[in-house]
Amino acid sequence: MSRLAAFLEPKSIAIVGCPSDLGRPGARPLVHLLKHGYAGRIYPVNARHAEIGGLRAYPALSALPEPPDMAWVGVPGPDVEPVLEECARLGIRNAVILTAGFGETDAAGKARQQRLRRIADEAGITVLGPNMLGFINCWTRVPLTFSPAGGIDRLIPGALGIASQSGALGGIVVNRAMDRSIGVSAMVSTGNELGITVSECLEHFADDPRTGAVALVAEGIRDGARFRAAAARLLEAGKPLVALKVGRSRAGSRNALTHTGALAGSHEAWRAVARQLGIVEVDTLEDLVEVAGFLSRERRPPRRGVAVLTTSGGASIMMADHLEARGLALPRLASSTVEAIGKLLPEYAVTRDNPVDVTAGLSEELFEQVLATLARDPEVDGVVTTVTGARGVERARNIARVAREADRPVVVCWLSGSLTDAGVPILDAEGVACFRSPRTTSAALAAARSFAAARAAWLRRPGRAGRPAPAVIVPDLEGALPHAVAAGLARRAGLAMAPGALVAGPAGAARAARRLGFPVALKVVARDLAHKTEAGALALDLGSAAEVRRAGARLLAATRGHRIDGLLVQRMVRGIEVLAGVTRDPTFGPLLVLGAGGVTAEALGDTSVRPLPVTRGEIREMLTEIRSLGVLGGWRGAPPADVPALVAAVEAVARLAAALGDRLEAIDVNPIVVGPRGRGARAVDLLVQVRRGGGRAGQ
Amino acid sequence: MSRLAAFLEPKSIAIVGCPSDLGRPGARPLVHLLKHGYAGRIYPVNARHAEIGGLRAYPALSALPEPPDMAWVGVPGPDVEPVLEECARLGIRNAVILTAGFGETDAAGKARQQRLRRIADEAGITVLGPNMLGFINCWTRVPLTFSPAGGIDRLIPGALGIASQSGALGGIVVNRAMDRSIGVSAMVSTGNELGITVSECLEHFADDPRTGAVALVAEGIRDGARFRAAAARLLEAGKPLVALKVGRSRAGSRNALTHTGALAGSHEAWRAVARQLGIVEVDTLEDLVEVAGFLSRERRPPRRGVAVLTTSGGASIMMADHLEARGLALPRLASSTVEAIGKLLPEYAVTRDNPVDVTAGLSEELFEQVLATLARDPEVDGVVTTVTGARGVERARNIARVAREADRPVVVCWLSGSLTDAGVPILDAEGVACFRSPRTTSAALAAARSFAAARAAWLRRPGRAGRPAPAVIVPDLEGALPHAVAAGLARRAGLAMAPGALVAGPAGAARAARRLGFPVALKVVARDLAHKTEAGALALDLGSAAEVRRAGARLLAATRGHRIDGLLVQRMVRGIEVLAGVTRDPTFGPLLVLGAGGVTAEALGDTSVRPLPVTRGEIREMLTEIRSLGVLGGWRGAPPADVPALVAAVEAVARLAAALGDRLEAIDVNPIVVGPRGRGARAVDLLVQVRRGGGRAGQ
Repeated sequence: MSRLAAFLEPKSIAIVGCPSDLGRPGARPLVHLLKHGYAGRIYPVNARHAEIGGLRAYPALSALPEPPDMAWVGVPGPDVEPVLEECARLGIRNAVILTAGFGETDAAGKARQQRLRRIADEAGITVLGPNMLGFINCWTRVPLTFSPAGGIDRLIPGALGIASQSGALGGIVVNRAMDRSIGVSAMVSTGNELGITVSECLEHFADDPRTGAVALVAEGIRDGARFRAAAARLLEAGKPLVALKVGRSRAGSRNALTHTGALAGSHEAWRAVARQLGIVEVDTLEDLVEVAGFLSRERRPPRRGVAVLTTSGGASIMMADHLEARGLALPRLASSTVEAIGKLLPEYAVTRDNPVDVTAGLSEELFEQVLATLARDPEVDGVVTTVTGARGVERARNIARVAREADRPVVVCWLSGSLTDAGVPILDAEGVACFRSPRTTSAALAAARSFAAARAAWLRRPGRAGRPAPAVIVPDLEGALPHAVAAGLARRAGLAMAPGALVAGPAGAARAARRLGFPVALKVVARDLAHKTEAGALALDLGSAAEVRRAGARLLAATRGHRIDGLLVQRMVRGIEVLAGVTRDPTFGPLLVLGAGGVTAEALGDTSVRPLPVTRGEIREMLTEIRSLGVLGGWRGAPPADVPALVAAVEAVARLAAALGDRLEAIDVNPIVVGPRGRGARAVDLLVQVRRGGGRAGQ
Repeated sequence: MSRLAAFLEPKSIAIVGCPSDLGRPGARPLVHLLKHGYAGRIYPVNARHAEIGGLRAYPALSALPEPPDMAWVGVPGPDVEPVLEECARLGIRNAVILTAGFGETDAAGKARQQRLRRIADEAGITVLGPNMLGFINCWTRVPLTFSPAGGIDRLIPGALGIASQSGALGGIVVNRAMDRSIGVSAMVSTGNELGITVSECLEHFADDPRTGAVALVAEGIRDGARFRAAAARLLEAGKPLVALKVGRSRAGSRNALTHTGALAGSHEAWRAVARQLGIVEVDTLEDLVEVAGFLSRERRPPRRGVAVLTTSGGASIMMADHLEARGLALPRLASSTVEAIGKLLPEYAVTRDNPVDVTAGLSEELFEQVLATLARDPEVDGVVTTVTGARGVERARNIARVAREADRPVVVCWLSGSLTDAGVPILDAEGVACFRSPRTTSAALAAARSFAAARAAWLRRPGRAGRPAPAVIVPDLEGALPHAVAAGLARRAGLAMAPGALVAGPAGAARAARRLGFPVALKVVARDLAHKTEAGALALDLGSAAEVRRAGARLLAATRGHRIDGLLVQRMVRGIEVLAGVTRDPTFGPLLVLGAGGVTAEALGDTSVRPLPVTRGEIREMLTEIRSLGVLGGWRGAPPADVPALVAAVEAVARLAAALGDRLEAIDVNPIVVGPRGRGARAVDLLVQVRRGGGRAGQ
C-alpha cells in the first residue's frame, strides 16, 4: 500500500483545534466525520472542554490514550509548529495542516514553512498542507475536511479521483459531481504541498483500483519530473487525467506565486506536457466535473464519429457545429438506417441523414425507435441526442432504456430549462451521460477520443529513443558557446550543417568560397550578435570571389566593436526554413520548440512545443501542428520537402540537448533549410547557450 | 406603430386546428392564452366541438362573429392553403402558421410555400411562419405559442427581446431567462420567414421602448441588407444584439439549408457583419441567455478593467485567467484601497492587490466591507466576486447590498454547487448579475465593453465615405476582365499601380524595361492564368535588356496554349506584400478581404474581412487584426511601412468595387507592395472578375 493510500484510511484521528460549538467553521472536520459515520476513533483536542459533540475531548495530544494515526491541525498560525513538534515526539506519522500563512505569503512565511518541513522530515511525518482544506475518502467514509463538501448529504463513492491544489475548488468539484450523481473515490486538496503533492495523488489514483479517471485542479506543478511520470502512469493504466490548470494570465500568475507558493512555470510548457501525456485540458469547473465524470464511467472512443438525433432543426445544427469544431465527424448513416428511419417518420420530417431532426411533433414511442435504430448504425461509434421539448421525464426514461441496451455511448445534451429539467436526475441516476451544453458534450466526446489516441501513441513509443546521445565535453563557460565549439557538438550529435568554413578575414573567405562553390553566404560570427540580419552581419547569394571579398570587408566594418570570432562562409542552400530550438523550463526541464524559420514563428506565435525526450513520431506530429509549415507537403506546384531529413535533423538537435544535460541553457537552430525530398536538410545557423555545471536538471 | 408591434398585440385570435382535449399538444396556444389571462377575445375553431376549454368553439373561420385580428393556423399540411385563402376572403390581416413541411423540405414544399406567399401578398396578410412555434408578448400577456415556454408559471415582463428562427431554441431562451429572473419583452420565432423575418424583429426591438437588448438565434439570414440596417438601428439605439448563429459546420450547414430553407451564406461573411455592427457572438444557449440578459439590464462598460474579490486563491487565479483572455484588465488598486483593505484583513491574507483573495476564514461582515471598498476604488470600472464558500444566502444578501449602492457594476461568478446554491435566486431576484462560470462572466463584461466601443466607432463614422466611386463603363463580359481594362478601371478608382507597360513580345519588353529603369519584373498576361508563379509565367529582378529578352522568350514558351494578352513589364517594387480582395457574399453582398500578400494569407487563414462600404478607420482596424502584417509597424530593425498609402490603396479597391456595383464578381489585388513610410504603396497584380448586368445587388 502506498503512503498516500494508507494516509487516506486512518484508523484514528485527533482533531487539534476543535471548537466545542459544532456550529463554528473550525468544527467542520468533526461534524463531517460524525455525519458520515467514520468508522475509526476520533479524539477532539481542546484544552477547555472535556466533551465535544458527544465525544470525550482531551487537553493535548499527549493526553490521548494512543498516538492516533493522524492529526488534523486547525490551530492558529503560531501554534502549528509546536503541535507538529508534539506529533513528532508522540510518533504520530500523519498530519493534515489546515492553517494558512506559510509558503504562500512572504519570506517570513516561507521560513516558517521551511521549519515545518524540517520537523516533518526528521520525524518521518507525512504532511498534507498547510493551507488546504483536507481530504474526503468516499469509499471508506473519511470526510476529513474543512470544505463544506464534507457535509454533503449523500457522499457517493465512485470512480472519479480528485486532486486539487485549491481546497475551495476541490470541494466544489466534489459538490458538483455529486449534484450530478457522479461518484468520487477520493478528493485530496494539497495546498502548499509541504509533503503530499498533486503528483503523488496521481500516482495513488493510477494504482487505486476504485479510480477510473482523475480531475486535477492545479495552480503550478512543483515537481515537474515526478508529475510527468505520474501522468504517464495514469496514461498507461488507461485512466484519463482531466486538468483545470489555472495561472495563464499575468495577474493570475502573480497570485499563483503568492497564493500557494507554486512555481507557475510557463503555461506553454504545461500545455506541451499535457499534449504529450494525453492530459485533457478544460478551463471551467463545469467542464472539469462533466468531462472527468464522463470519462470515469465511459472511455469507448467515438473514433469514426457520432450520429446526432434531435427534435429541433436549430439544435441539430448547433450540435453539429460544436462536434465538428472538436474534430468529431458526423458520418453519413448506413442506407439501411436511413431506410428504417424513413419508414418511422412522417412525411414532413425530411432530414433523414446525420444529423437527424425528427421534429417536435413525433411521439415518444417513435422517438425511442429512431434512437435505438441510430444506436445500431454500423457507420457511427456513438449517438448524441439533444432535449429541447416538453416531455422531460418520459424522454429521459426512453433514452435511458436505449442507452442501457446500446453497445456504444448514447449521450444526451439537455438544452431545455426548468420546465423539462425533471428528466435530468433520471438520466443521472441511470448513469447516462447528460450534458447541459453542446460545448461540454463535444468536449467530453473529444476527450474520450483524444485520450485513446494519446494512450495508443504512448504505448507505441519505442522503449529506447533512437541513437544515444554522444558523450561530449563542454567548456566550463556560461552563455553562448563559440561557433566552432557549438558546431562541433552539433555535428557529433548528428546534425548536418550547410558546408562552410570559419575564416579570419575577407581574403580567407574568398578562398573558402572558391573551394565550397558559388553562390555562398557570408556572415560575421560573434557571440554578442544574436540577430545577424539587423546588425548588417549577413550577406547572401554572393556569386564570385570578388563579391565575397567586398562583402567581407563591409560586414566587418558594420560590426566593429563586437566580439568577433571570424567570418563564416557557407554554400547557399535553398528550401523551406524551419526553426528548431530547445529551452529549459524551470518546472518541466528541456522543451523542444519547432516553427517556421526566420522571423515568422516569432511573429505569428505559430510553434509546436514538447518536453524532451521526444520520439520520431512526435516530431512528425509537431510539424503538422505548425500552420506555416503546411508548405512542407508541397505548395502551389513546389515539390514536397525532405521531411525525413528534417525529422532526422530535429532528432539530432534533441540529441544535442540530451548530450548537454544539466549544462543546457538553450539551443537555437534557425534555420534548418529543408530541400525537396531526397535532397536533405541542413542547419545554417546555430546558437548554443550553456550554464555552469552543477545546475539541477529539470527532469 | 410598426406592423410587427401591432402583430404582437392582437385584440382577438382565432385558433384554427384546436383540439378539444386540452392535454393534447395542439391545444397549447389556447392553454397558454387562458393560463396567462390573455385580455382579448379567443375563438377556437373546430368543426366537431361547440365548446373548448370553456370557450364557445366555431366550425370555421367564416362562422366567427367578427373577423379576428389574427388567425393561429395549426392544421395539417394540406389544409394550410385553404385556411389562408379563407383568411384572405374574410379580411383577416395576421396569421401565425405552425405547420411544417414547406420551404424547409423539398422542391414540392418550396412550391407549396410559394403558393402561401402569393395568397398572403395579394391579400396583404402578415404571416409569421410557417414552421415555427409562434410568439410570446410578455408585457401584454400574449403567449400565442406551441412552445412549452408559453406555459411557464411566471411570465416575467422585462427588457430582453428574443428573435429566433428556431422555435424550440427560442422557447428555451425564454424558459432559461425566466429561470434566472430575467424579464423578456417578447419572443418571436420566425421559422421559414415567409413574412416576418428576424430582421423585422430587430427593427421592432430597436423601436420598442420596453426592449433594452436582443437575443438572436439564427440559422441563416435571408435579407442581408435589411438585417444590416436593422442591426445598425439597434446599435444606434444603444441596444446590444447578442447572437447565437448556428451553421458553421459542414453537416450543420447541410441542415440549415434543408431545415428552414435559409440561405446559409458563409460563416466568414456573418462574422464580418457581426464585427462591423457590434453584434456580440456567443455559441451556447447559456451564454446567450446570460450575456444578453446581463446587457438588457447593465450596459456600463468596464473600460479600464475590474477588481476581483475572492475567498479562494484558485478562484482568483481562474477568474483572472478568463478576464485577461477576454482582454479585460485587472488594474493595480489605488493605494488608498490597498491600505483600507489591509486594515480590514488578518495577517495571513496577504494578497491585497488585484485580484484580492481574502481567504475563506473571513467573517461575512468583513467580506462585505472589503467588497464595498473595492466598489469605490478609483482605478476600476467594476467588481467581480466569486462565491466558493459555504454561506450562500448570507453572502448573496451582502453582495446585493453592496451592488445596490455601488455606482458601477458589481457582478458575481457563483462557482459553488448545490450546498450553497440557495443564494443564487436571491441575487437573481435583486437583479444582481450572477453567472455560473468565469467564462460567461468574462464574456458578459467583455460584451458590455465591446458593444460600447463598436457603438462609439459607428457613431463616429463619417456621414459620407471619402471620394465617391467613379462612374465607369464595364464591357458586357462575364469572368476576368482583360488586364488593360482592369488596370484602367483601377486607376480611375485611384489605385496606384507599379509603373509598367503591356507589350506584345520580348523585344517590346526590353524597350519598355529600358524606359522604366532596371531591375524589372516580367509576366505573361493571360485571362486563363490565375497563378502565375506556378505556371512559369513570371520572372523577377531582371537587370538588363538582354535578360528581359531572354526571359520574355522563356515565359512565352512556358505558357504556350494559353489565351495570352501580352507581356507586362513592371519596375520592381520592394516592400511588404499585402493582399486586398473583394468577394460577393450571396447574403451580405461585397466583402473586403485583407491579408498578407503572396501565398501566406491563404496558407494561414490569417485574414480580416468586412462588408463594404468601410471607413478608413475600419481599414486600419482590419490591418491590426492580421497577425502576419504585424511587420507593417517595423520588425527587427526594418523601418515602419507606409500605412497611410496602404490604407489609401485599399480605399481605392473598395471604390473600384462600388464603381462596379452589380457587375462585381470579385477583385483580387495581390500583392500591393508597401514601401517604407513616405514611399507609397503600389499594386503589382490585379484580377477583376465581373458578371453579366442585371444581377441583383447583395446590398
